[in-house]
Amino acid sequence: MSYGDDRIYKKVEIIGVSKRGLEAAIQAAVAKAHKSLDKLSWFEVQDIRGHVGDDGMIAEYQVVLKVAFQIKE
Amino acid sequence: MSYGDDRIYKKVEIIGVSKRGLEAAIQAAVAKAHKSLDKLSWFEVQDIRGHVGDDGMIAEYQVVLKVAFQIKE
Amino acid sequence: MSYGDDRIYKKVEIIGVSKRGLEAAIQAAVAKAHKSLDKLSWFEVQDIRGHVGDDGMIAEYQVVLKVAFQIKE
Amino acid sequence: MSYGDDRIYKKVEIIGVSKRGLEAAIQAAVAKAHKSLDKLSWFEVQDIRGHVGDDGMIAEYQVVLKVAFQIKE
Amino acid sequence: MSYGDDRIYKKVEIIGVSKRGLEAAIQAAVAKAHKSLDKLSWFEVQDIRGHVGDDGMIAEYQVVLKVAFQIKE
Amino acid sequence: MSYGDDRIYKKVEIIGVSKRGLEAAIQAAVAKAHKSLDKLSWFEVQDIRGHVGDDGMIAEYQVVLKVAFQIKE
Amino acid sequence: MSYGDDRIYKKVEIIGVSKRGLEAAIQAAVAKAHKSLDKLSWFEVQDIRGHVGDDGMIAEYQVVLKVAFQIKE
Amino acid sequence: MSYGDDRIYKKVEIIGVSKRGLEAAIQAAVAKAHKSLDKLSWFEVQDIRGHVGDDGMIAEYQVVLKVAFQIKE
Amino acid sequence: MSYGDDRIYKKVEIIGVSKRGLEAAIQAAVAKAHKSLDKLSWFEVQDIRGHVGDDGMIAEYQVVLKVAFQIKE
Amino acid sequence: MSYGDDRIYKKVEIIGVSKRGLEAAIQAAVAKAHKSLDKLSWFEVQDIRGHVGDDGMIAEYQVVLKVAFQIKE
Amino acid sequence: MSYGDDRIYKKVEIIGVSKRGLEAAIQAAVAKAHKSLDKLSWFEVQDIRGHVGDDGMIAEYQVVLKVAFQIKE
Amino acid sequence: MSYGDDRIYKKVEIIGVSKRGLEAAIQAAVAKAHKSLDKLSWFEVQDIRGHVGDDGMIAEYQVVLKVAFQIKE
Repeated sequence: MSYGDDRIYKKVEIIGVSKRGLEAAIQAAVAKAHKSLDKLSWFEVQDIRGHVGDDGMIAEYQVVLKVAFQIKE
Repeated sequence: MSYGDDRIYKKVEIIGVSKRGLEAAIQAAVAKAHKSLDKLSWFEVQDIRGHVGDDGMIAEYQVVLKVAFQIKE
Repeated sequence: MSYGDDRIYKKVEIIGVSKRGLEAAIQAAVAKAHKSLDKLSWFEVQDIRGHVGDDGMIAEYQVVLKVAFQIKE
Repeated sequence: MSYGDDRIYKKVEIIGVSKRGLEAAIQAAVAKAHKSLDKLSWFEVQDIRGHVGDDGMIAEYQVVLKVAFQIKE
Repeated sequence: MSYGDDRIYKKVEIIGVSKRGLEAAIQAAVAKAHKSLDKLSWFEVQDIRGHVGDDGMIAEYQVVLKVAFQIKE
Repeated sequence: MSYGDDRIYKKVEIIGVSKRGLEAAIQAAVAKAHKSLDKLSWFEVQDIRGHVGDDGMIAEYQVVLKVAFQIKE
Repeated sequence: MSYGDDRIYKKVEIIGVSKRGLEAAIQAAVAKAHKSLDKLSWFEVQDIRGHVGDDGMIAEYQVVLKVAFQIKE
Repeated sequence: MSYGDDRIYKKVEIIGVSKRGLEAAIQAAVAKAHKSLDKLSWFEVQDIRGHVGDDGMIAEYQVVLKVAFQIKE
Repeated sequence: MSYGDDRIYKKVEIIGVSKRGLEAAIQAAVAKAHKSLDKLSWFEVQDIRGHVGDDGMIAEYQVVLKVAFQIKE
Repeated sequence: MSYGDDRIYKKVEIIGVSKRGLEAAIQAAVAKAHKSLDKLSWFEVQDIRGHVGDDGMIAEYQVVLKVAFQIKE
Repeated sequence: MSYGDDRIYKKVEIIGVSKRGLEAAIQAAVAKAHKSLDKLSWFEVQDIRGHVGDDGMIAEYQVVLKVAFQIKE
Repeated sequence: MSYGDDRIYKKVEIIGVSKRGLEAAIQAAVAKAHKSLDKLSWFEVQDIRGHVGDDGMIAEYQVVLKVAFQIKE
């Protein structure tokens, strides 16, 4: 691929959830989508949320992402 | 599923249309997506619109939704 | 299809890229989605961006679109 | 009217108020605008609000809408 | 109270949840806030969401609201 | 008019321009709309802008407003 | 008219539809509003949408605009 | 307090109403919240609205604010 | 608590500040609110900001959050 | 300069701070930018905030603005 | 430059004005910024507006853009 | 500097890119701007994006920031 060639991308909205932190939640969702959808080009964070445990600790991060991949002919 | 396990959700944007009212339009779209996509976890209303008949009555409600479901391994 | 019948649409987000201008970028993405997804009903422009070449000329337009099509039974 | 003919629509912002519920507030505003402005084609809900009575019951729904109609030659 | 007198209101964000529909979710939250916070003047709907049951039926509506009440001296 | 009666309002977007300040720009637009449209109920400020003179002084304030009035039968 | 004089503008929301492209849709709506409303000063594009034909070609562009004109005494 | 120390603030949404103008409406709400909530650090204007009297004069300004204060241990 | 029971949540806006990073700022605010308000269910990140020291290093992260908890009878 | 000639403007984001009120904060920032950047054409208010003193009085207004000026050849 | 290397970009907001159409307005602004600021990498359209002549024809397009370029060491 | 003195800040939009994570991307951009523009006071995160490598790993984080610094006389 090079700039200047006509082409099409698709964006899909996914939510990565991880108790291991923000970047882990993003990476887990990206890796999963990369494998099941198609080879991803980029991601965009839409929202950052999370669940709080009974002890007041962050039990998990939930990161809403858009991921994009090129649609091949 | 329980909070704290790493997991991934996907969100899809659909539009439910019904002449039977707002909730009917949401339910119809949710039921359809539940059957054809995957077992849904939740929905989010994005926009509420509708078509008006020649008699000035609301001919149908059009509700733009995002529906979310867990992507299983 | 006629107004008043209950039905469902799906919206998908795509990005059309073309060096031939804004409308060419939209048309290319619409035509591609029409063929690979389903017969489209309408599109909505979300964002207009582009890449600039080393000579300061617009090397390509990148138009982010939502395209919608009816989900048949 | 058929798709493909050049034409113009106008959108007007109105607020329907009714104690009989959300859909009643929308229908009342649509019917009124249909009669006094012009034959409406569609509506879009902008905001949903309401007044609360002294007894804690919803005294009325106030729905902000845009309604659209074709401008004839 | 009459228009023209200096006064202060406070807005609080609450979420009403009900399986009985949109208006029931709004009314339940308004009634609860009316009793525990203060006599409410109005509400504004911020977001409409919901949970989907295993059978594809809407298990509950979740309506995010802002409710407003006057702060008395 | 009292809360609880079904009724309809219309909102119109206007821009008040005045060199005498923000409030003067709002008041001038409100007074003008009140006279030419109908007896206004309320206004909402949408945007505040202005023109700068050659001397770096604010030459005029331009306030974009929505004004609302009840549509009588 | 010159900067610095108090004055009022009104903004109206219209939708221009044309199969001949984006600029044609804007120009058609502007020309029509210019004739039927009042001599326009400027326009602002709010949204760009369109209808897709059965052949996957853009059947028409629909451009949502705000147009503004000065209200004379 | 100094930058660099871990600490927590809370933001509360209030509406100041005054017939004496924009700044009076802000100041009244800030003073009231300062006394009844806690010693405020800053405010952010969210919306500016107002009521119009029968004579077309602005009867009162209504300014929606967020006010913030530090939560002490 | 289980899905399907009518219930009410409240959301409160807080700002967590920490020099130890983004997640520390979120966790500190969540822990504090959990203790002083009520047992939290979830949080939503609204804004990420920070203060820069004289040496160009990030002196502290300031994360604006909404935190939510169930209102018990 | 006259309408219809091709030309370029630049917008810069600045924050005017003044204890003397909203308009003073805007004017101070505009005058400063007019002198140090270039002869400004217009400004747009983005946000209005302020600092509150220990006595609950508004200690200063902080107005976030965009200012625009023509880039000459 | 290649993906994976730490680097910094700057975005600047400009407005391209041209009577020759949307793309001409974008291209003119991009070319100008490319020459006077730095070698641009990409642009993002923020707003499309325009001036209307006395004859109801679009006298010029005004396109608000953000342009981005890499800051070199 | 102390609160209450009239002063002016400027905000500039930059994008920090780093493969070492979110905070590294923010810190790199802040440090760079601090050196080349002026001594920064604060930053605001606008957007978080990133590039995905062929192996499905996040190849780099791209954080869009606004950074602010005081304009001295």
